[in-house]
Amino acid sequence: MRILVVNPNRLDGCTDGIRRAAESVAAPGTEIVAVQPEFGPVELAGQREVLLSAVGVLDCVARHGPGAAAVVLAGFGEPGREAVQETVDVPVLDITECAPAVAGLLGRSYTVVTSTRQAVPVVEDRLRALGLLGRCAGIVPVGLGVAEMLERPEETRETVVEAAKRAEGDVVVLGCGGMAGMGRSVRVTTGLPVVDGVTAAVALAESLVRLD
Amino acid sequence: MRILVVNPNRLDGCTDGIRRAAESVAAPGTEIVAVQPEFGPVELAGQREVLLSAVGVLDCVARHGPGAAAVVLAGFGEPGREAVQETVDVPVLDITECAPAVAGLLGRSYTVVTSTRQAVPVVEDRLRALGLLGRCAGIVPVGLGVAEMLERPEETRETVVEAAKRAEGDVVVLGCGGMAGMGRSVRVTTGLPVVDGVTAAVALAESLVRLD
Amino acid sequence: MRILVVNPNRLDGCTDGIRRAAESVAAPGTEIVAVQPEFGPVELAGQREVLLSAVGVLDCVARHGPGAAAVVLAGFGEPGREAVQETVDVPVLDITECAPAVAGLLGRSYTVVTSTRQAVPVVEDRLRALGLLGRCAGIVPVGLGVAEMLERPEETRETVVEAAKRAEGDVVVLGCGGMAGMGRSVRVTTGLPVVDGVTAAVALAESLVRLD
Amino acid sequence: MRILVVNPNRLDGCTDGIRRAAESVAAPGTEIVAVQPEFGPVELAGQREVLLSAVGVLDCVARHGPGAAAVVLAGFGEPGREAVQETVDVPVLDITECAPAVAGLLGRSYTVVTSTRQAVPVVEDRLRALGLLGRCAGIVPVGLGVAEMLERPEETRETVVEAAKRAEGDVVVLGCGGMAGMGRSVRVTTGLPVVDGVTAAVALAESLVRLD
Amino acid sequence: MRILVVNPNRLDGCTDGIRRAAESVAAPGTEIVAVQPEFGPVELAGQREVLLSAVGVLDCVARHGPGAAAVVLAGFGEPGREAVQETVDVPVLDITECAPAVAGLLGRSYTVVTSTRQAVPVVEDRLRALGLLGRCAGIVPVGLGVAEMLERPEETRETVVEAAKRAEGDVVVLGCGGMAGMGRSVRVTTGLPVVDGVTAAVALAESLVRLD
Amino acid sequence: MRILVVNPNRLDGCTDGIRRAAESVAAPGTEIVAVQPEFGPVELAGQREVLLSAVGVLDCVARHGPGAAAVVLAGFGEPGREAVQETVDVPVLDITECAPAVAGLLGRSYTVVTSTRQAVPVVEDRLRALGLLGRCAGIVPVGLGVAEMLERPEETRETVVEAAKRAEGDVVVLGCGGMAGMGRSVRVTTGLPVVDGVTAAVALAESLVRLD
Repeated sequence: MRILVVNPNRLDGCTDGIRRAAESVAAPGTEIVAVQPEFGPVELAGQREVLLSAVGVLDCVARHGPGAAAVVLAGFGEPGREAVQETVDVPVLDITECAPAVAGLLGRSYTVVTSTRQAVPVVEDRLRALGLLGRCAGIVPVGLGVAEMLERPEETRETVVEAAKRAEGDVVVLGCGGMAGMGRSVRVTTGLPVVDGVTAAVALAESLVRLD
Repeated sequence: MRILVVNPNRLDGCTDGIRRAAESVAAPGTEIVAVQPEFGPVELAGQREVLLSAVGVLDCVARHGPGAAAVVLAGFGEPGREAVQETVDVPVLDITECAPAVAGLLGRSYTVVTSTRQAVPVVEDRLRALGLLGRCAGIVPVGLGVAEMLERPEETRETVVEAAKRAEGDVVVLGCGGMAGMGRSVRVTTGLPVVDGVTAAVALAESLVRLD
Repeated sequence: MRILVVNPNRLDGCTDGIRRAAESVAAPGTEIVAVQPEFGPVELAGQREVLLSAVGVLDCVARHGPGAAAVVLAGFGEPGREAVQETVDVPVLDITECAPAVAGLLGRSYTVVTSTRQAVPVVEDRLRALGLLGRCAGIVPVGLGVAEMLERPEETRETVVEAAKRAEGDVVVLGCGGMAGMGRSVRVTTGLPVVDGVTAAVALAESLVRLD
Repeated sequence: MRILVVNPNRLDGCTDGIRRAAESVAAPGTEIVAVQPEFGPVELAGQREVLLSAVGVLDCVARHGPGAAAVVLAGFGEPGREAVQETVDVPVLDITECAPAVAGLLGRSYTVVTSTRQAVPVVEDRLRALGLLGRCAGIVPVGLGVAEMLERPEETRETVVEAAKRAEGDVVVLGCGGMAGMGRSVRVTTGLPVVDGVTAAVALAESLVRLD
Repeated sequence: MRILVVNPNRLDGCTDGIRRAAESVAAPGTEIVAVQPEFGPVELAGQREVLLSAVGVLDCVARHGPGAAAVVLAGFGEPGREAVQETVDVPVLDITECAPAVAGLLGRSYTVVTSTRQAVPVVEDRLRALGLLGRCAGIVPVGLGVAEMLERPEETRETVVEAAKRAEGDVVVLGCGGMAGMGRSVRVTTGLPVVDGVTAAVALAESLVRLD
Repeated sequence: MRILVVNPNRLDGCTDGIRRAAESVAAPGTEIVAVQPEFGPVELAGQREVLLSAVGVLDCVARHGPGAAAVVLAGFGEPGREAVQETVDVPVLDITECAPAVAGLLGRSYTVVTSTRQAVPVVEDRLRALGLLGRCAGIVPVGLGVAEMLERPEETRETVVEAAKRAEGDVVVLGCGGMAGMGRSVRVTTGLPVVDGVTAAVALAESLVRLD
């Protein structure tokens, strides 16, 4: 089974981190293909870049989608799942939906830890549109953009741990592709249940394919 | 005062209808500039076209926005207001927000009459993201795309009247740019309060400018 | 076009302030007629006075309503719009509805700054009845009654500015007739979007008349 | 213990019916004093009369309240409880709150049977303001005003029974003072749990006094 | 009239306290029969004991229910009312429902003071299932189990008073059978309206019987 | 990996069906252990049996839980997940939560098809307690108990297909252990996405274990 994982930004290090996180959870026999747009904004700082990136994501799916058993959109808070689903017959999973779905099995509320202050309304709007705000106890920015996270991974991990410790919800959701792969480490350090959107989506994608 | 009104599709007749509707309500001294994207999908049949059209809308605002006192986005259910607002300092109004705001002053619930069955979830998602679903009594498609509406205006008016008569809410909202300008006629025929998103947005845009 | 603006209390200074605020935003050609009840409570300290004042408001509309193109009720949180609407054919606008409608175009949540602690449940009940509590981030009293505001305008302005700076919502709503006319000043001092119920209602009244 | 029951309209037969219903459920030793306003509208057909009646209700409580252990407001959907509570130290109970409270102990949803079509939005607004709409499965008018009910009691009973049989909720609430005393008969005929606001409020008033 | 009051735990002192509280509010002629399960957990520390206790409660009702005019379940947050109602024809009242019903007549929001931190999600889940979370301003544990409360009544009273003073809601609900009988004392000390679930349920049970 | 699947009733055929459904979706290397209570009600017709069955379920988990990597509770609408989770360290999954979680990835609303009319409030209460009613478009009984389903499998399949065709939601959830294994067949016949709670829970259980 091949799963196409699309990073909406164009930071190579972020796509690499997403690939590694996805592969770490994939079942034997699952092939992860992690891609990023060939054009569009390099980093998604605000609503404008988020909207522009969707074109490149659609292009990615058109190029790399054929043959995939499922598509995972790895931008937390990004629009596009409904649009991508119109173009392929296989399940399309948005990490913004998958992380709360898994968090809901682990606790009664969750806190999203995200990148910058500007990302907060983007994430909030998407969760509201999906009808998932009800159990969300908060959306907390760590104050670092994705490029900064890639440059200073240790500092990023520490700020994420700090944010997780102050979280009001039962479960911590890592709401940013730049945090892909940090789930286990944050969980071990804080003792809290932690959901990484990318690994959650890959696991759910495999489930959907098997249930079909 | 100049108001830039952006039609997200590329049907000349639709842009013309939107311009005429906007001009019919504009105060003396208000100049309406109605434009449409220079590239992107001609008609917005589904979520994919809706998403792709947003790039052309951003381009329209970059080209024609300077000098405008307000920007009106004339696609019902379209995303983009938050992204456009990041690029200009003047108020940006989405007809999907303006129509329910005016409807709320006229009654306690409203029904949206929209184009095709595919448009219903697009409109529903946008209203939910905006927190405006609570007073929405229904979203009813007339079964005609915008291009068909332009070709068969009389049939369109009749199906809109029929849908309005069956509406459960107190107020009828015309939720499609292709219906711009039909408000008065539908109101006279049905005796119901009718809100046309384009005229509502132009009136509110003038109000916001004056209140500033 | 004549707009009748009814102040529910009987403080001349308050009615004057409401008139000036209304005139400051009215379009050329719009005549503002600002009135107050001929009988009933002078100041509306609690729910009892609020209820009693409604009789005088109905009387005002019976006397001064004929010939008006719209009626604005300038008491924030006051009941009566539905009752007044039964007695006239023109639009009746309650500032308690108009301020959130305009605030919704400027941000995703709003804080109401009101007079005294006793006014808080009055405002909360009215917003709930109108279905407008969802986006309300808080109702904050400044601890001054309307008569005190009229006597000490500078202190009032300062306490309103302080309350606005601490507001949790994106937009500040001036939820008291005694604050009519302070919108611009509070906005300039705080840098926040500020909505004055009276000016919002006059602008919306003109919009509704034009849209009709 | 004396309980003051205030009928907001000025129909003697309605006040008599309310008195009889209240007495039928009162504990031994409880004295029921049923009164009606000395001025104001005779029948409450719409929102205007409802608002005007509140002045006479406040006057009733000022005259007859001293010495009472509790006050019951017997108008379904009427405002005024908060205002009356400001004027007396004893519990003030609104039948619009008491009937859903008792219905909630008998089932998971309730339907309100009320007088005329005009009463529906009055009742709906009051239930929403009280936060009680969530479990309300419907508000059904029988198409008779209170004066008509008094003239044609048998026809009234039959239309109430018909409405009760079609009700969607688990419990039937008699939402009109003109139906006071019909609870048992409607329950026996339909086999459904039926709550009469007046008797529910008297029983709850006695409970509150005893719990104090 | 006989009312069967069932304490779900097997602490004799708790059953005694519940009996005394129930008798303190019962009308002359009402006989209170207070019982506890003959088997099952002695104290209900978590969800497992809560679930296990329900079997003993059903057994209590089977043994002592015949001849009772109403059954009161005196465990705050316990499941079982729906199950018990299937086995008897008389009203079954859960103090988790009765306390909010009475609190709703006394104020617009209530805070539940409960035993331990583990009890909080039990209470929250039950209130949500009953549709009663909307007006709940908080659930505050005092950090004492029921057995501890019985051993140290004075310390319990003081911690309950402290919790009541910090409560955000208008009304304090004593959400634990171990606090039965403390209502008046907490009310006098704090000056706040206080609802004791057991006395509220007994008063409502008498009301329902009389209304039948 | 071993997954313990607990059927709350004591119908051997139902436990067999649940085992086969679970095995059909389990990954290679996953061992399914399907059990049923050793005591308690044979079939769960109402709320009383549902409550009583929970003791036997707890006993099952105490006996068979050690060594399992996850526990699946296969009763739709049954309480007990929170209680069981207190007794084991591995994830405990309730099919009442898992089916809506998977349905949410496949569509925006779901309809539950369940056994008898008596099961409807049981399911509704559990979904409300879990905060999952928002996207539920309906709960439709087929009018057959689990024992009847086992005796007449072909008739059961046909009534489930009929109910699925009339469903208002986008996705059909099989909300009864007696329907375990029918998912694919109902999907093929109706062309609708169908979620079987048992297979969904097994797939999610494997995901949670892998994500840990």
